[in-house]
Amino acid sequence: MRYALGVEYDGSEFLGWQQLGEHGGPSVQATLQEALSSVADAPVSVVCAGRTDAGVHGECQVVHFDSEAGRDPRAWMLGTTTRLPRSVAVRWCVPVADDFHARFSARARRYRYRMLNRTVRPALYRQTLSWERRPLDAGAMHAAAQALLGENDFGAFRSVQCQALHARRELQAISVRREGEVIEVAVQANAFLHHMVRNIVGSLVLVGAGEQPVEWIAELLAGRDRTVAGPTAPPQGLVFVGPLYDRQWQLPTEVTQ
Amino acid sequence: MRYALGVEYDGSEFLGWQQLGEHGGPSVQATLQEALSSVADAPVSVVCAGRTDAGVHGECQVVHFDSEAGRDPRAWMLGTTTRLPRSVAVRWCVPVADDFHARFSARARRYRYRMLNRTVRPALYRQTLSWERRPLDAGAMHAAAQALLGENDFGAFRSVQCQALHARRELQAISVRREGEVIEVAVQANAFLHHMVRNIVGSLVLVGAGEQPVEWIAELLAGRDRTVAGPTAPPQGLVFVGPLYDRQWQLPTEVTQ
Repeated sequence: MRYALGVEYDGSEFLGWQQLGEHGGPSVQATLQEALSSVADAPVSVVCAGRTDAGVHGECQVVHFDSEAGRDPRAWMLGTTTRLPRSVAVRWCVPVADDFHARFSARARRYRYRMLNRTVRPALYRQTLSWERRPLDAGAMHAAAQALLGENDFGAFRSVQCQALHARRELQAISVRREGEVIEVAVQANAFLHHMVRNIVGSLVLVGAGEQPVEWIAELLAGRDRTVAGPTAPPQGLVFVGPLYDRQWQLPTEVTQ
Repeated sequence: MRYALGVEYDGSEFLGWQQLGEHGGPSVQATLQEALSSVADAPVSVVCAGRTDAGVHGECQVVHFDSEAGRDPRAWMLGTTTRLPRSVAVRWCVPVADDFHARFSARARRYRYRMLNRTVRPALYRQTLSWERRPLDAGAMHAAAQALLGENDFGAFRSVQCQALHARRELQAISVRREGEVIEVAVQANAFLHHMVRNIVGSLVLVGAGEQPVEWIAELLAGRDRTVAGPTAPPQGLVFVGPLYDRQWQLPTEVTQ
């Protein structure tokens, strides 16, 4: 039987989704697999919709796994959550068709980046906010970001460690808005390159701070040169909101609409 | 010289605003006074607008203090924040008139309570959300809460440890609304009794879960009997949004409007 899970996690307690070698420190994947294996009383491996880096959070990561343990979805959800640390929870579990694949069936991914834009660092919500003290013009950032829409080569916003075969991705939506002291960047694409959201945000911040003109983002995109773009924004502001799937897979609405 | 500070803190790392005896564990007040005294190079004591309990957060607590150290407001804000743990930050500092008093000059206080209403516990935002698994009817909670408006004796919602001379308070606004899986209760009063917000929320949850009718809140209020009201809601969902002052004190707009 194949199952899909919606998983929420606080990335600040992990060195990323994926285990990096034997001594790589705690990963969300290994932690989740351990809890699932305990419920199944047999080894369980998961495949995720999108790997996240150290410190990046997951609001509704989706994974699939196969098991013959015969637990019902509610038992997988509650039994697994009970065995997980407080920083991880299984939001839902549904049985899925054998050809569902958390990664390959996903038609889009959504991320949200939030930064506190004021003179002093965040204290209360510091686990999920980055911090920028220069006053930012969210309108200029939003206008600049629209140049990224469509299918483009995002080489300018790709980390040097990125292992993707090519840098073409379809950016379907991007918005920047201010709510009080918080600037929020929401972005959706068919798929993302390594560090792509954080590199886009790092460049948009330079536009928002007035250090680069609005047109600069279009120039960066066209130039495909990572070395001239802005710095990579810190991880704690980034949340993987979740993937999107076609309705045929009969998954919860939060990952189908 | 008298100064007012806006202070933000994550209450989960403290045993409350006030130090409880010599071995009471870390308090926000003692932590803040230590940092201010270091900047002043002399002992500094603060008076706050509203004491918060263990685990309760502050978004814009206001304190006043007196010092002849001659630092400018920006130096107080930045120098103090540098000396504070990551869970506390000074949002602003302004010089105030000698007769300003953080507690006695405040004409109202605002609190916000947020709970995650779903089957599994929170993971990503667990520091600032409580958890209620029974499905809650926010509309019924909102309707029930309106019975509390006005000047009333809130004895039914006062903890046995409450040291206030009487239980009459003026509740100026209360609302309950749902945003996705989160239920938010926002409340404003001239002042609050010990545990008053958490006791109101605990009773509203019983209405939202359908265990008590909407009229029950009005009956509780009239009965003034703490022993028949709902349980005290857990502290991590509660944020002291801040006090409100008259414009004459020339404080930042977040505590005057």
